[in-house]
Amino acid sequence: MPKVLITTIPFGDKNRLPLELLERNNIEFLINPLNKKLTEGELAELITDFDIIIAGTEPITKKVMDSASNLKMISRVGIGLDSVDLLQAEKQGIVVSYTPDAPAPAVAELTIGLMIDLLRSVQLSNIGMRNGKWNRFFGRRLSEVTIGIIGVGRIGTGVLRHLKGFGSPKILLNDTMPNHNLNKEFNIKWTDKETIYQQADIITIHTPLTSQTKNMVKKEQLLCMKEDAIVINTARGGIINEQDLYDVMQENHLSGAAIDVFDFEPYDGKLSEIKRCILTAHMGSMSVDCRSRMEIEATEEIVRFLNRQTLESVVPEEEYTVQREGL
Amino acid sequence: MPKVLITTIPFGDKNRLPLELLERNNIEFLINPLNKKLTEGELAELITDFDIIIAGTEPITKKVMDSASNLKMISRVGIGLDSVDLLQAEKQGIVVSYTPDAPAPAVAELTIGLMIDLLRSVQLSNIGMRNGKWNRFFGRRLSEVTIGIIGVGRIGTGVLRHLKGFGSPKILLNDTMPNHNLNKEFNIKWTDKETIYQQADIITIHTPLTSQTKNMVKKEQLLCMKEDAIVINTARGGIINEQDLYDVMQENHLSGAAIDVFDFEPYDGKLSEIKRCILTAHMGSMSVDCRSRMEIEATEEIVRFLNRQTLESVVPEEEYTVQREGL
Repeated sequence: MPKVLITTIPFGDKNRLPLELLERNNIEFLINPLNKKLTEGELAELITDFDIIIAGTEPITKKVMDSASNLKMISRVGIGLDSVDLLQAEKQGIVVSYTPDAPAPAVAELTIGLMIDLLRSVQLSNIGMRNGKWNRFFGRRLSEVTIGIIGVGRIGTGVLRHLKGFGSPKILLNDTMPNHNLNKEFNIKWTDKETIYQQADIITIHTPLTSQTKNMVKKEQLLCMKEDAIVINTARGGIINEQDLYDVMQENHLSGAAIDVFDFEPYDGKLSEIKRCILTAHMGSMSVDCRSRMEIEATEEIVRFLNRQTLESVVPEEEYTVQREGL
Repeated sequence: MPKVLITTIPFGDKNRLPLELLERNNIEFLINPLNKKLTEGELAELITDFDIIIAGTEPITKKVMDSASNLKMISRVGIGLDSVDLLQAEKQGIVVSYTPDAPAPAVAELTIGLMIDLLRSVQLSNIGMRNGKWNRFFGRRLSEVTIGIIGVGRIGTGVLRHLKGFGSPKILLNDTMPNHNLNKEFNIKWTDKETIYQQADIITIHTPLTSQTKNMVKKEQLLCMKEDAIVINTARGGIINEQDLYDVMQENHLSGAAIDVFDFEPYDGKLSEIKRCILTAHMGSMSVDCRSRMEIEATEEIVRFLNRQTLESVVPEEEYTVQREGL
């Protein structure tokens, strides 16, 4: 009987369907017994005799795969593949699938909420009110600012779509492969990242984490930004350098930031000292509908795998190229 | 030389134009020396020899007008007239103007931010992270819920317009004078308030405060709502009964609330004990652009008044009728 390790948590929590799918197909499974994001070492220890992993964002490295002699498939609940050593998986003949579409709507919508929250100092006022402070903070509206979106794939495009109902913000976009079809529908301008850093009032990141985007926004880039700019990272920890963000905000640069993703999760670092930096616990995809869809799709894929059916969301060759060529 | 009392604060802070307008027209003015929302007593004491008041939301009652023998004009920075005894003003021949359009865009946009914030537990996660808690809260997306808008004037319509970019939420509307033109543009349903209380997942209030809407949402109405409903009040304090809201939320009813307006401001009441109730300091209209527009329009109106020019935003007869008939 195949054994499945489910590392991503929560799982089957708001919608039992993925668990039922496993049960109905007589698949033996174990849900992450440590109930937290696993480290490489913890995963290597845990994974030894499992055939399949339904994975979150924990590191699935050579070390992990080396200790998983039965491993035949990795089914990622989500879109990012930075946590999976695809080349090693390929070498060991391990199939990798993912759920690239499901998380996007939830991440895009949260991003708009964070933009308004930061523009209007909602969380600052909320915390202040609880300490007896009545501060009527001035804010700005979306249509009054320039919004820079770096990474215009599924999520970045979703953000763009939501912005449509808010008058006509000035929107600057950057992507390695610009989708010029968007130009017909939106009032946008494609430009380089440097222009976005310099001109945007809100900079939101929606790229994958690759060797090219790791530390893409360091002190140098942060200091290029307007003094009252806002940065948002709902993509992956490490794209904006955490220490540098802390340092510049400590020095009163930037009017606000919202960080949902961190180098090490769960996060307990110094950004929590910065009141105007909203911190959330990697919740971008955590709407009930999107999360359920991710879990169901990832589970359906392993059922197909075990039943020798055609898989529907095998990670495409481009993702291997990204890792092979260090793109 | 005419003397103007400016009670609303901040004033001329982000945009000096209203102050320059006063200076250029040789108008003597005093900005609220107490730097807080004035009580009836404080205002009655302060106002004695002023000719004009550029007013916030402090109570301009018979008592206040009785002690203001020179008062000829009230220019409200904002839209709500619940704070002004219009009938007494009429009796004393005091002209009342307001700025009904200027605040709407800022209030509508903040409301959307509060909706997403509450749906996704942003402020709970943010506070948790600062106490070392990594909770990945589940949330819902706007397009997955039913949104009830009570009061569909300038602000309610703005909320509706912003929602357009978020898929197709189910939207229920209530207004004493439904604008059925909106039916062509939006997928909406006009209904009674009770249906909204019972069916909506998010209930947002955009009515004026009148004798009809005061305490419109009491314990009875709150308890009709879904257990995990969200209520938002960016309109006026007192429309949702504060004590009742506190009581039901204390008993775990409602999944969240956002309250920007209070019976007594600055607010320092018990709602601050409820973590899932976002509290903000009457900041609905506080975007730089809207606030400036409000201050400029209110100041331009008094300049017109003093120059005996035609006024542009005198409070219309309907508003007097509302107070006369206790509507």
